[in-house]
Amino acid sequence: MLITLHDTPAIQLHPADDVAIALTPLGSKRQIAIAGRSVQLRSDIGAGHKVALRPIEPGQPVRRYGQVIGFATQPIAAGEHVHTQNMAVGDMQLDYQIGVDVRPVTLVPPEERRTFLGYRRPDGRVGTRNTLVIITTVNCSAHVVRQIGARARAELLPKFPNVTDIVAIAHKSGCASRSSGYEIEMLRRTLAGFARSPNVADYLFVGLGCETNQFEDLFLSQRARLGDVQLPPYIGIQDTGGVAATIDEGLREIAARLPRANECRREEVPLSELNLALQCGGSDSFSGVTANPALGYAVDLLVAQGGTAVLSETPEIYGAEHMLTRRAASRAVGEKLLERVHWWEEYTAREGFEIDNNPSHGNKAGGLTTIYEKSLGAVAKGGSTPLQAVYEYAEPVTERGLVFMDTPGYDPVSATGQVAGGCNLIAFTTGRGSCFGFKPVPSIKIATNSVTYERMRGDMDINAGTILTGAGVESVGREIFEKLIAVASGEASLSEAQGIGEEEFNPWMIGATM
Amino acid sequence: MLITLHDTPAIQLHPADDVAIALTPLGSKRQIAIAGRSVQLRSDIGAGHKVALRPIEPGQPVRRYGQVIGFATQPIAAGEHVHTQNMAVGDMQLDYQIGVDVRPVTLVPPEERRTFLGYRRPDGRVGTRNTLVIITTVNCSAHVVRQIGARARAELLPKFPNVTDIVAIAHKSGCASRSSGYEIEMLRRTLAGFARSPNVADYLFVGLGCETNQFEDLFLSQRARLGDVQLPPYIGIQDTGGVAATIDEGLREIAARLPRANECRREEVPLSELNLALQCGGSDSFSGVTANPALGYAVDLLVAQGGTAVLSETPEIYGAEHMLTRRAASRAVGEKLLERVHWWEEYTAREGFEIDNNPSHGNKAGGLTTIYEKSLGAVAKGGSTPLQAVYEYAEPVTERGLVFMDTPGYDPVSATGQVAGGCNLIAFTTGRGSCFGFKPVPSIKIATNSVTYERMRGDMDINAGTILTGAGVESVGREIFEKLIAVASGEASLSEAQGIGEEEFNPWMIGATM
Ligand SMILES: [Ca+2]
Ligand SMILES: [Ca+2]
Ligand SMILES: [Ca+2]
Ligand SMILES: [Ca+2]
Ligand SMILES: [Ca+2]
Repeated sequence: MLITLHDTPAIQLHPADDVAIALTPLGSKRQIAIAGRSVQLRSDIGAGHKVALRPIEPGQPVRRYGQVIGFATQPIAAGEHVHTQNMAVGDMQLDYQIGVDVRPVTLVPPEERRTFLGYRRPDGRVGTRNTLVIITTVNCSAHVVRQIGARARAELLPKFPNVTDIVAIAHKSGCASRSSGYEIEMLRRTLAGFARSPNVADYLFVGLGCETNQFEDLFLSQRARLGDVQLPPYIGIQDTGGVAATIDEGLREIAARLPRANECRREEVPLSELNLALQCGGSDSFSGVTANPALGYAVDLLVAQGGTAVLSETPEIYGAEHMLTRRAASRAVGEKLLERVHWWEEYTAREGFEIDNNPSHGNKAGGLTTIYEKSLGAVAKGGSTPLQAVYEYAEPVTERGLVFMDTPGYDPVSATGQVAGGCNLIAFTTGRGSCFGFKPVPSIKIATNSVTYERMRGDMDINAGTILTGAGVESVGREIFEKLIAVASGEASLSEAQGIGEEEFNPWMIGATM
Repeated sequence: MLITLHDTPAIQLHPADDVAIALTPLGSKRQIAIAGRSVQLRSDIGAGHKVALRPIEPGQPVRRYGQVIGFATQPIAAGEHVHTQNMAVGDMQLDYQIGVDVRPVTLVPPEERRTFLGYRRPDGRVGTRNTLVIITTVNCSAHVVRQIGARARAELLPKFPNVTDIVAIAHKSGCASRSSGYEIEMLRRTLAGFARSPNVADYLFVGLGCETNQFEDLFLSQRARLGDVQLPPYIGIQDTGGVAATIDEGLREIAARLPRANECRREEVPLSELNLALQCGGSDSFSGVTANPALGYAVDLLVAQGGTAVLSETPEIYGAEHMLTRRAASRAVGEKLLERVHWWEEYTAREGFEIDNNPSHGNKAGGLTTIYEKSLGAVAKGGSTPLQAVYEYAEPVTERGLVFMDTPGYDPVSATGQVAGGCNLIAFTTGRGSCFGFKPVPSIKIATNSVTYERMRGDMDINAGTILTGAGVESVGREIFEKLIAVASGEASLSEAQGIGEEEFNPWMIGATM
């Protein structure tokens, strides 16, 4: 990979960090200027490895991403290589300490608060898009909702300029499962979450009729969330008389909903109404150095505005849960996170899958010293503020600030849970180059390196690879923050402009397909 | 449900049966004419219940669907009600007897054999359609293959009249799994099976680039099946430079394949080249009385022609595996079936799901006496010939005659395995009214009752409900058989004519999503 490094040999990823990361192999005689000070190197430092920015006493914490990644096991001088010979995990591995690293958030003064242009719903929720969705209860109605969606976009949507899109939400499951139990409850709250997304003005469910996932049961179990409905929320193919009749009926139902949806207008709303889903996929060795810390910086800015960011992908933060509990705002929050991690341990053991991914020989050769440091590369996109809440998959997100939702690491499944939880914007970091779109919520792609950014210019919204050539984490973080506001206010992200996002809806499936 | 019964009070489902099924409640004084004989009823017989057609001695087998469903526990006179008071499962429950019920197939003499108009591939396989398919390795390329498919159908297909369709084969998985293991092997052989479906003239895989399901690994593991390729079988979004460039490149790749695909012509081929997938979904209480036995009769006709039918849906035949082993052509076939059933027992126990569905109180009130009788309602669509082979999911089907493939009961997942195994036609029985289509293989829908047939006339190809008003199982079976030949030869099934079938591809997923 060709990266031009100019004269930025190493970077500090967070102002609180005790170490900088070498971007290129550095000789021991070298003098480097970083974070406003000059450091004389005392040993050779490999690319991706850590150099101490100040003296660290034995037993003192070592911070990267603004987070503790381990403790000095010997006196470390400024300019020294920090790795397995002088740093270790210490007691953190044994202790689930809760709340000890909480640093209170300094909110931006009210008069300096930022706004965006959003769609305020009658109940106060705020969307970044104004869509209608047609949702399947079961795979058997997927063809019908796709046809209703395609025809409604072609025949009806042009007459309603304030409606931004009509989206088919189709999935593969909904039958051959148990009629009650955790797995169908999870599907029901996922589907209800899309019906009641702040980006959705109105919705229609379409089923076959004989499926296990009966709409009536879904509606009753999700009544608190689905609220009052003005028009029948469901049509069934068997009752309506087959595929052709149901497509016609669906088009009539959508036509009946469009005038009211078209009355919504963008208005200025506080940034505290942004609910940002954090994703990474196709990671590379720069993810934890460029895009994730820069996104984390933008998240800190958003949280200071009173906004919300949802960190997820439990298998990808595994091993760093001790670090997140140290930032938990309460004992209950910390314990809920640990409970979800233990669920994953039992689940993967039952399925014969491995979840324990301690730093390998290759990881260590690349400069990662502890499992905390490794998983914090993923966690870095969550920034440094306290963890305010932990949610199960697709549960409604009600707290503000940084929160966690338990999801798989698989991007479409993870984002499905986050959007079902109420997220109205997605920020997605990628090293190898994901093209992820996710209707009805815009997805902003942040490349970790300039090679991917240049090769996929039509798909990458932000180039965090500029950090490798001196742009600075804070500068790219501010660029992401401004892009979030612009896209929330109506600017099309690149995936959105290409119409990507009707294939990625992917409810988490646990349990047997019968 | 309104069914006009005319003067057909009871039916014999198979010529070998010892019992008839009452279609309406019958009083004990009634004389009924059935199967060429007159029977004086000796007790009241409820609708759906069994009446003896001839005397049965204690210990003698009782047959329905031409299959043993239990043994007389007392002397049973002609005209008597046959149920729990005089019939039980006997020793079958304990014994896995193999091959004892094999009745050799009498093949139709060569000069009387039927043919259909099919597409013969260079290696001898025969298709019923002549398509190109574009297959995803991972959900991340689903949008791209859908776009390539839609644009190729609109812009290219009209110029190639002998190519019947261009189909996007998109799925939700392909990443966040283990890079080796049974679950990804199953996905790989499923995808390879679609690439090499006899209904597919040529194929193109499209991936993202960084997915777990790497095309190179797929190709190497499936090389025996994928064979020689004339054009590059794969493009990747990351290597090609993003979404827009990959759609353009994909269209060029499809354009390059179309001329050769367009050289294929239908020709007369023996019916032994038909490989029929058997499905039922949305079953009702008539499924085991009308549509399934009629389809079973058609399957017996097909097998007598040297053709193949694939029975599946293991959870739906559970409890009747002892009955199928009695028809197993060899010890190895019988033991492989039992091995798959035991796998399901362990799998569902691990997942906390129930597979044991003995006849419930409601089943017994409806006339079902034993678990064999219940599961044989589903098995009935397989007819009465010997079981020649048992396959795992998506394995290539190589034997002729009636075979079994282990799949879930969920229709789209089951049909995906069957078509991956080489099926070139689907026969689907439905009581409640499924609209199942499945590109690139035509699907014929057989309604179990006239109410569903009339209500969904645009979706139901065959009305087996006429059996309830006197049509006769054999007569409807012959109607199905002729429809199979017509659709195989190019007549559009009703789901096909409506363009249904790009949403139902659904590879079986086992194991954790990470
Ligand atoms: Ca991920
Ligand atoms: Ca992700
Ligand atoms: Ca079924
Ligand atoms: Ca089924
Ligand atoms: Ca089925």
